[in-house]
Amino acid sequence: MELDPNLDIEIWPGISKPEKVQFAVAWRHPANLFEKFPNLKVISSLGAGVDHLLSDDTIPKSIQFTRIVAPSLSGQMADYVITAVLNIIRKTDHYIGQQQKGVWKPLESLKKRDISVGVMGLGEIGTEVANTLVSNGFTVNGWSKSKKTIDGVSCYTKDELGSFLTQSNIAVCLLPLTPDTNGILDLELFKALKKPSFLINVARGQHLVEEDLIYALDTNLISHATLDVFSEEPLPESHPFWGRDKITITPHIASVTDPKESAELILENYKRMLSGMDLLHKVDREAGY
Amino acid sequence: MELDPNLDIEIWPGISKPEKVQFAVAWRHPANLFEKFPNLKVISSLGAGVDHLLSDDTIPKSIQFTRIVAPSLSGQMADYVITAVLNIIRKTDHYIGQQQKGVWKPLESLKKRDISVGVMGLGEIGTEVANTLVSNGFTVNGWSKSKKTIDGVSCYTKDELGSFLTQSNIAVCLLPLTPDTNGILDLELFKALKKPSFLINVARGQHLVEEDLIYALDTNLISHATLDVFSEEPLPESHPFWGRDKITITPHIASVTDPKESAELILENYKRMLSGMDLLHKVDREAGY
Repeated sequence: MELDPNLDIEIWPGISKPEKVQFAVAWRHPANLFEKFPNLKVISSLGAGVDHLLSDDTIPKSIQFTRIVAPSLSGQMADYVITAVLNIIRKTDHYIGQQQKGVWKPLESLKKRDISVGVMGLGEIGTEVANTLVSNGFTVNGWSKSKKTIDGVSCYTKDELGSFLTQSNIAVCLLPLTPDTNGILDLELFKALKKPSFLINVARGQHLVEEDLIYALDTNLISHATLDVFSEEPLPESHPFWGRDKITITPHIASVTDPKESAELILENYKRMLSGMDLLHKVDREAGY
Repeated sequence: MELDPNLDIEIWPGISKPEKVQFAVAWRHPANLFEKFPNLKVISSLGAGVDHLLSDDTIPKSIQFTRIVAPSLSGQMADYVITAVLNIIRKTDHYIGQQQKGVWKPLESLKKRDISVGVMGLGEIGTEVANTLVSNGFTVNGWSKSKKTIDGVSCYTKDELGSFLTQSNIAVCLLPLTPDTNGILDLELFKALKKPSFLINVARGQHLVEEDLIYALDTNLISHATLDVFSEEPLPESHPFWGRDKITITPHIASVTDPKESAELILENYKRMLSGMDLLHKVDREAGY
């Protein structure tokens, strides 16, 4: 409204004329909601992920999905991942534990040159994360469905997951959530990673098989996990992840949509829809992102 | 010995012929030790700091001091500082506290664009720290005795400390310890910093007036301090710093000398001394570094 005072915006459930709605903005909408809008053409996700839209079979195939691809999302994610990776090699969690016990004990840090980081998912965000890791001196591997070329990054494609994993100590999950990637962070993957192994999940909780992670931590297959996303959010109070000292938990804050930046992108796509122009950041519903 | 099998090396106190010693390697040596070596020409510090040598008045002025200026020292320090800075803006310590209580609560992170980092001391290490911060998108100010020029860094000289501080949220101390810098991190400095203010001390414990920091934390003049060095190390068990949740303590591990790299530098200087060549990384005993 601030960006364009002439816009006609209504907020569900207070929508007076559903038949007038052509463009919707949604995040984790109620089931069957979109059946009520016969003239809907475009639904924009409020974030980079669209799994909440793709999983709703009641949305007609004729409706185009778009998503938010904002520079600030990639930059925030890159900062979160580089922070997590540096905390892993500098053993921050060990030092915090020692400080709480009043223990002064230098530990041998992991050497940057001995640790390689594997970025799973090389979209806009994954590519920026990989670039940031490279510019900070890390050895970086990348894995994606289609072949990518990124300066300084060893890129692997779908079928080369095994080689990618044996070359990577730290798995960073930035994949879209699709039927192919659901549960991909499982025991088999943890076993295949180069040792010592670490996990950073900043994509979706459903990528991770939670009981496999617990087992992998208990058996030292995984030395530490940094998790920003969970299959149930907020993470339930009784969840076993809370009490584990080898897990770092953050409440889905790795990358937060900037309202102004998102509003500008949404408005741009709204105007493109009205004028019949090609939309920005369209989602391929078959590919799942 | 591994680098040059012909070297004649003796380890104090097992030194058979003190009059033969021309070159010594020292770190926090006992008082009056060097009076015993009449033909000593060079003492190499085992680290980047030489305050342990400069503070010993019994060492004749004719003896040249050298120090270790190793790429890995600067790189480790840059990693430590960027980790500390990122943990500050991403509120890592708050999230750790919340996790320990089982609390799921997203917090507003500090915005990179709103936070500027002030690097105190622009020698080899300070310059690399400043460059790393710039390449990670931070606004960086630098303060040094003599005027420096570093791409992307606003550099201030000795007399401009006040302006430097009012432009900097995070003070990173990388100064050499000299009579001028002893106790420089005091209440007056904390008051002058841009708010919110943070302290990272990775130089020497004596740079910090400890009781001033406690007061500044209690009155929110300083929001958080990351300390790797202390006036007494190991930090005594009864020290009030241990129990403070606004202080992050690491046991002097920000930058650790790599034995092989140091040995190569020391050997190079030993050979230069023998052949009468100019030494590398000589210390100006007047300037104090």
